[in-house]
Amino acid sequence: MDYAIMLGLVAGAMTTGSTIPQLHKIIKSKSSRDVSTLFFLFMSGGMLLWLVYGILRADLVIVLWNLISLCLCLVILSLKKVYP
Amino acid sequence: MDYAIMLGLVAGAMTTGSTIPQLHKIIKSKSSRDVSTLFFLFMSGGMLLWLVYGILRADLVIVLWNLISLCLCLVILSLKKVYP
Repeated sequence: MDYAIMLGLVAGAMTTGSTIPQLHKIIKSKSSRDVSTLFFLFMSGGMLLWLVYGILRADLVIVLWNLISLCLCLVILSLKKVYP
Repeated sequence: MDYAIMLGLVAGAMTTGSTIPQLHKIIKSKSSRDVSTLFFLFMSGGMLLWLVYGILRADLVIVLWNLISLCLCLVILSLKKVYP
């Protein structure tokens, strides 16, 4: 495995994993008042396009992380409905 | 310009631009209580690594958007100090 792919895997683990503390914070505080819905809406739309970009560029690292991130962003958007 | 690059430009505009409503919300409400610091810390670290990934893969679209996103995430982290 080359260095770029290893770096992409770590980079993606960090940006994708970053949503976990946000998820945890919303569930713990049962509030998402200061979290912007537009932020996660645009983020989800962008992730979907990055996913297609990764497919077009045959870049599996981009595809993998954006797929997982998209799912996590959709979970946060759902939580905004549960804990507004 | 090929389709993949155009798509990457739109995708990046969306994921990078997504931070603008979050920035606006924090400034307007003067509060970032429900916004996770860890989220933006991991996001910033990840963006920095994506930046290096883009350089290694000679992918200018990845470099461009991650550089701008990194700056915006650092602004949000600073705002967390101003409006905790």
